Parts: sequence; structure tokens; C-alpha cells
Amino acid sequence: MGKIKIDSNAFTYPMPMTLVGAMVRDRPNFAAVAWVTRVNYSPPMMAVALGKDHHTNPGIHAARAFSVNVPGVDLMAKTDYCGIASGKKTDKSGFFTVFTGEVTGAPMIQECRLCMECLLVQSVDLPGNELFIGEIVGAYADEGCLTDGKPDVTKIDPFTLTMPDNGYWRIGARVGQAWSAGKNVKG
Amino acid sequence: MGKIKIDSNAFTYPMPMTLVGAMVRDRPNFAAVAWVTRVNYSPPMMAVALGKDHHTNPGIHAARAFSVNVPGVDLMAKTDYCGIASGKKTDKSGFFTVFTGEVTGAPMIQECRLCMECLLVQSVDLPGNELFIGEIVGAYADEGCLTDGKPDVTKIDPFTLTMPDNGYWRIGARVGQAWSAGKNVKG
Repeated sequence: MGKIKIDSNAFTYPMPMTLVGAMVRDRPNFAAVAWVTRVNYSPPMMAVALGKDHHTNPGIHAARAFSVNVPGVDLMAKTDYCGIASGKKTDKSGFFTVFTGEVTGAPMIQECRLCMECLLVQSVDLPGNELFIGEIVGAYADEGCLTDGKPDVTKIDPFTLTMPDNGYWRIGARVGQAWSAGKNVKG
Repeated sequence: MGKIKIDSNAFTYPMPMTLVGAMVRDRPNFAAVAWVTRVNYSPPMMAVALGKDHHTNPGIHAARAFSVNVPGVDLMAKTDYCGIASGKKTDKSGFFTVFTGEVTGAPMIQECRLCMECLLVQSVDLPGNELFIGEIVGAYADEGCLTDGKPDVTKIDPFTLTMPDNGYWRIGARVGQAWSAGKNVKG
């Protein structure tokens, strides 16, 4: 099929929704972030891209720390609210039950089944966003979301984002095993 | 529920699968990459994290370009194969039907319903990976995967990756509208 040129403001499908936590002026603040990915295997590192005007950014710089929390579909409305309401105008410090691990300045969310605390390694200055790269120094999960000691996506029940249609989507059926599904393909 | 500390080699759920294209020694090469995210809104930029020993990396540096292609479930086995077979040992240049847009050095995949060509803006050197940040200068889609001129995830039928269980997953039900689902939440 022939290809049509579309808007260059294009996206991957779908994007995982997270809540990024930071201490801002001594209060926990949480931003809804789908522009997030692992970027290094060992040590484990996570990168999150935040608009430069986000309330969270100065907090990450000051504490040199942040958290990445994976909300379930049960937290969709609250997560979305965190993307609508800026911490500049809304105090989100009492919005979730906050806990901390080993890192000062990386408030995590008890209601999220999986949480990671990160130490800032590097920030990359881009035209409209800042990319914060952090080392994951602690990860915490609800026992109920583990299978054989590992996080089980069907128990986490996360949701994803698509843009520019701005949809939230649940995960669907398991369709294959990675590093295995292609082993019989002839190159 | 109390949290259990788990392996710090933790992930977001789920991760979008892509095929990253580059010209390596004058041949198109494709790597299976789930560590990918948008990182800047305007101009649109995409970042992909590749292990330092990947065959693709010198090609991206040399051409200062790469592509990001979104495979559907129909390409799961071929995509997985691209993650198993290194371009160092396997010539993947004839593995897909390749097309190019405006960028030299960003081979795209006709069989993928959505493709983006990127000019390298910056690379970030991390301990075991390189993070390539590129500006999306062209995006191309099959007409059949568009709804109202925008990519429709249900028509793209992409798949996602979970680690460390190494599962591939289809997208599930639409559960909400972003920047709307939380508008009635009381902060």
C-alpha cells in the first residue's frame, strides 16, 4: 500500500502512562508522563521527558532525584487529573499516600502497584523539554502484582496513551514470547 | 498493601515495539527496539536507546539519521527476528521492502503502517547504551491505518513488550480520554 505523508508530530503506539514524583518546595508533586523509557541496562536507568515549564523540573534538579510510578486503570482519573492540574496552582501533596525508599527527594505512590526511585544522572536540554536520566536505585511492588517474584502486567493493569487522538488504552492479549517468536524466521 | 522491594532492573509497562532503521555500510539495517520515546514536542523529537555494541550505532553516527517504524502484530515474528539476529552476522537489507523519504540514511519499512524519518540531533553516551535523539522530519502512514487523517492505534495493531518476562502484548480496550478523564476529580 502506498504511504501518505502525515504530520511530523508523530508518535509510537502506545505510550506507557506513569506518574513522575519529585519534591518541589518541600512538598511531593506528581506529573502524568507518557514520554518515558528505559535507556540503560546496567546500571538500570530511566529517562523522562518533561516540558520545561513543568512545576516538577526545578524539584528534580534541586534534589537530583525523582520517582517513576506505574498507575493502574483504577487510578486513571487521578492520573489524568495530574496531567491537567499543574503543581504551580494545585497542591498534590495529599493526593496520594506517599512513601519513600532509600532516596531523599523521590516520593513514591502507595496506590501504584509498581514504583521506582531514581537518582538523577544527567539532564539533557532540548528546545521545549528537559530529558531527565536517572539511575533506578530501588524498585517496589505490591506482592499481589507479582508472579514468580516478577511484575506481571496483567496484575498491574496499567494503561497507555495514544496521541494525537488522546486515548487511554488497557493492555490486550499476550501474543508472543520475545527473543523467541522469530527464531524460526528465515532471514 | 505493603510494598516489596524487587530487582532494581525494573521497567515501565508496557513498552512499544519499534524497528529502528539505519544505513550501515551502505546497506539498510533494522534493529528491534522497545526503549524509545518522544522527548520534545516542537520540533518533534524521538529518542531511541541502543546497546553500544549494536551494529546499527555506527550507521546512525555516520549518516546522522535513523528511522523509527511501527510494526503490527502481523510483523511480530520478523520484528523479533531482528532482535535475535545481529546485523553483524545477518544481512537484513532484503528482509523488508525499503523506502526512503527526504532523509538520506533513514531507510523505512513499507510493511510497517507508520514510519518516521529522523535527523540525528544529539547522542548521549551512557554506560552500556547510546541514546540517539532525532528530530522527526517526516512521517508516513498507510491510508488504511488513518481515521480522520490521524493514525488509529486499532488499525495499526501494534504490539508491546514487557520485561523481564519478555512478553509481547496486543493493545486492549479503550478506557478513557486523556486530558479529560480526570477533569471532575477533586484535588
